[in-house]
Amino acid sequence: MKIALAQLNFHIGNFDSNKEKILEAIRKAEALKADLVVFSELAITGYPPRDFLEFEDFVAKAKNAVDEIAISCKNIAAIIGMPTPNTSKKGKLLFNSAAFLEDGKVKKIIHKTLLPNYDIFDEYRYFEPNREFEIIGFRGKKIALTICEDIWDVERNRLYTVNPMEELIVHKPDIMINIAASPFNYNQAKIREEVLRRNTLKYNLPLFYVNHVGAQTELLFDGGSVVMAPSGKVVDVLNYFEEDLRVYELEETIRPKKFVKQEIPSKSALIHDALVMGIRNYFNKLGFKKAILGLSGGIDSAVTTVLAAEALGKENVYNVLLPSKFSSDHSISDSLELVKNLQMPHDIIPIENSFETLNTTLEPYFHEKPFDITEENLQARIRGVILMALSNKFGYILLNTSNKSEAAVGYGTLYGDMNGGLSVLGDVYKTEVYELARYINRNGEIIPENIILKAPSAELRPGQKDQDSLPDYAILDKILYQYIELRKGPSEIIAMGFEEELVKKVLRLVNINEYKRYQTPPILRVSGKAFGMGRRMPIVAKYLS
Amino acid sequence: MKIALAQLNFHIGNFDSNKEKILEAIRKAEALKADLVVFSELAITGYPPRDFLEFEDFVAKAKNAVDEIAISCKNIAAIIGMPTPNTSKKGKLLFNSAAFLEDGKVKKIIHKTLLPNYDIFDEYRYFEPNREFEIIGFRGKKIALTICEDIWDVERNRLYTVNPMEELIVHKPDIMINIAASPFNYNQAKIREEVLRRNTLKYNLPLFYVNHVGAQTELLFDGGSVVMAPSGKVVDVLNYFEEDLRVYELEETIRPKKFVKQEIPSKSALIHDALVMGIRNYFNKLGFKKAILGLSGGIDSAVTTVLAAEALGKENVYNVLLPSKFSSDHSISDSLELVKNLQMPHDIIPIENSFETLNTTLEPYFHEKPFDITEENLQARIRGVILMALSNKFGYILLNTSNKSEAAVGYGTLYGDMNGGLSVLGDVYKTEVYELARYINRNGEIIPENIILKAPSAELRPGQKDQDSLPDYAILDKILYQYIELRKGPSEIIAMGFEEELVKKVLRLVNINEYKRYQTPPILRVSGKAFGMGRRMPIVAKYLS
Repeated sequence: MKIALAQLNFHIGNFDSNKEKILEAIRKAEALKADLVVFSELAITGYPPRDFLEFEDFVAKAKNAVDEIAISCKNIAAIIGMPTPNTSKKGKLLFNSAAFLEDGKVKKIIHKTLLPNYDIFDEYRYFEPNREFEIIGFRGKKIALTICEDIWDVERNRLYTVNPMEELIVHKPDIMINIAASPFNYNQAKIREEVLRRNTLKYNLPLFYVNHVGAQTELLFDGGSVVMAPSGKVVDVLNYFEEDLRVYELEETIRPKKFVKQEIPSKSALIHDALVMGIRNYFNKLGFKKAILGLSGGIDSAVTTVLAAEALGKENVYNVLLPSKFSSDHSISDSLELVKNLQMPHDIIPIENSFETLNTTLEPYFHEKPFDITEENLQARIRGVILMALSNKFGYILLNTSNKSEAAVGYGTLYGDMNGGLSVLGDVYKTEVYELARYINRNGEIIPENIILKAPSAELRPGQKDQDSLPDYAILDKILYQYIELRKGPSEIIAMGFEEELVKKVLRLVNINEYKRYQTPPILRVSGKAFGMGRRMPIVAKYLS
Repeated sequence: MKIALAQLNFHIGNFDSNKEKILEAIRKAEALKADLVVFSELAITGYPPRDFLEFEDFVAKAKNAVDEIAISCKNIAAIIGMPTPNTSKKGKLLFNSAAFLEDGKVKKIIHKTLLPNYDIFDEYRYFEPNREFEIIGFRGKKIALTICEDIWDVERNRLYTVNPMEELIVHKPDIMINIAASPFNYNQAKIREEVLRRNTLKYNLPLFYVNHVGAQTELLFDGGSVVMAPSGKVVDVLNYFEEDLRVYELEETIRPKKFVKQEIPSKSALIHDALVMGIRNYFNKLGFKKAILGLSGGIDSAVTTVLAAEALGKENVYNVLLPSKFSSDHSISDSLELVKNLQMPHDIIPIENSFETLNTTLEPYFHEKPFDITEENLQARIRGVILMALSNKFGYILLNTSNKSEAAVGYGTLYGDMNGGLSVLGDVYKTEVYELARYINRNGEIIPENIILKAPSAELRPGQKDQDSLPDYAILDKILYQYIELRKGPSEIIAMGFEEELVKKVLRLVNINEYKRYQTPPILRVSGKAFGMGRRMPIVAKYLS
């Protein structure tokens, strides 16, 4: 028996395009003599459809699309993730299901048992957990079909009391298939392989694992679908960060002649590839081609523009230099060198006149209060206004260039440099941005060395340096990681050897700046805990602040 | 036996102030000879604490505070909502609990069984549901203690298979107590009374219901705690929208001599009071006193400033008029009349010079493209920059004045008039804003009649009217209500008699503007479905768009 894994990039709610994509993959798999082709979790809707699931119209359109696809499954069977109504009188209105299509119709529906409801996941908001366990019989083989979380380290995970594979194994299946939408973070590929391995070893069965690929706003799905032998060895891995379709002979996966040794790329390489996909999909799924951004001469905007150039084509990234009287010479010359290295379109638009006029307008109402953060923010906001005007005039999307360290401590101007349709580096700490710059320059200088070497500065007043108001990023990022990713409290962080006053200051800054992050653009998620949908904090609160 | 209901306004994470507030209420209840004083759900942390619950430090601080309070419960008992650890090896890490304090210590912990996980609720993200049912014995009486959702219309609600009161009733309790954090919307008080009544009638017991009061960022808790006789008649209702503490003799609630007929105020009156509380608590819990806003001469900013004046004191609301060359004379004169009516501080700051300078700066890069929405947005953004500069210079919070109709269809400028720390009217449709203005003028003209009567306009180009680009608000708001509040699909809405093209246009506008709403300030929630935490939509999607 031949099984095809179809790892595709779906567009949420775009049933026409998702259906076409699935039909094309079915045709391709059929041409490759596959008996069965497997698609990822909620393939027909795209993952996550979020509150669209609360619209009957949306769920009905998903059903219609799958019914239409079923007609094409005459000589080949297919497994497709879709939402289905819970017809019982009790419980949530939907199941997160997998439809098994055979003989031109939907033959069976299997529901997801374990529903993640933490971090970025809200599945218990929509779905009722499965309580009945069934095996799929297909061409003399028995398939144990599960959905994502269902096989996710159940015995080690305190959240769950049911183990779907334990229920299915009593039926003596021949194959495990898991369809997933498992979001990327830079540790995930390694963890995922171990989880899959524990399943194959425990049940002594081959495992076909199909993951979603592509970006859905902030969530990045890295693909990397896996075929694993009962021995826990990897038979094959599909591409990371792009669509892929491959066919496997079942017998050869049970007793494979050769294995693949997964070489997981470096953290910077993973983040790089994930962000490039994230930018690319944000633009193409929204129907945009061109990006605009402000190039400050600093490391964040430099890395952002390089990633955007890779995602969209260098001719599609419009770099605007917006110097003020506080801008250093090197901020211009370094930026010009960078755009020259990549041959990107650019303009220099000084903000001095606008700053003077607005200052003159405001002065009578400032009642002789001295220059302070107001004037610093004013410069950032004038830049924001100019960039948005160009964005509006030409239909470009403004890319936000803030990093995670800044976002964490509120070192940025709301409606100024915090503007943008998408935050590229908002889940990348400053120290990681430097690593990314080094990775970008791995085969030769793209980002000028001076941008990497100079002390970071917002250049909003004479001689300003980030480190005048913030601790050294090497220390700051470590404290932030403990607090944000690991959710350690102040006493735990202090016990690690960080200075008490500093820890309290940093945690306070994180908490009092929740209001700023609330209005931040969506942030491409590359870590285990990103700002945004996976971290839900009150704005009005007084905790560690 | 005397039971006190303590309906208090807690500050999320502010354990010192919450503890003091509870201790003060305990002293007051003791002075009134109460045997038991009851506080609301998660009183010690404030509701909802959201992801602070993922910090062990936060949960430990809550426990310490309750332990300290227990020492004061020597002659009086208390019931206090708090998170407690789930000590079992399986399940979520916490319970949403009620601590019963007696004889100077925590005598019993009761857990919440039914965990809402829809709309604005995320309780399944943090809490394990209760599975064991216990009654509290106290001074010869048996108390059936439940938490909020536990008694919430369980038999009619398809979500739940367990009914906590059915489990407790077998122990033959004498009293029902429910501690709640039930967020306000303009239909809630009526629905809530009916739900409570069905419980008293079914179990033939008196019910003491204590609700949270006060605003927690966007969520408004209206209080209105209730004592209800076994007959389903209301013995008493605590104040709406403010703190209250009252004591009841149990016998008199079982066989009360007099009842209260709840007169639920008009929708506009409810929304008005809720928004005033929302503004007031946002400011005082963040430690701010003064608001700034742009007064355009239109109805939205007029209503916003009146609400702010009521919440903060008229001397604390700084109104800035920001006319451009497109502003009509009446936009200035009407605004001046309004600030004169309320004697509010104000300034007139024309934006013409800034607009000219920015236009001159940008012109060479516009490549002779004609005046379009770019220049309209530019004016709105210059206003945003000026308001934020004044906000920064003086430490005022900028109030956003967008209404729900605009927010729905994206009729607003990101980083312009969509700026602000708090959106006052973002859950109030335009037609409801007019009703609110009429309500404000119920005892005499505060908002000048001309502001109410004139056709709405953004005044960003000559002769512009909202109705040039949007359908009549009377129709638009009806379509939006069907789509947003009731989640009807296009065919259902068209079947109601709305024009097909119009319905499709409106739904499309709602969906393609998700990216704008993502960066909107928190919106005070007054309806059953507000933009914000209760409505979670993908940005990158293609559904009805």
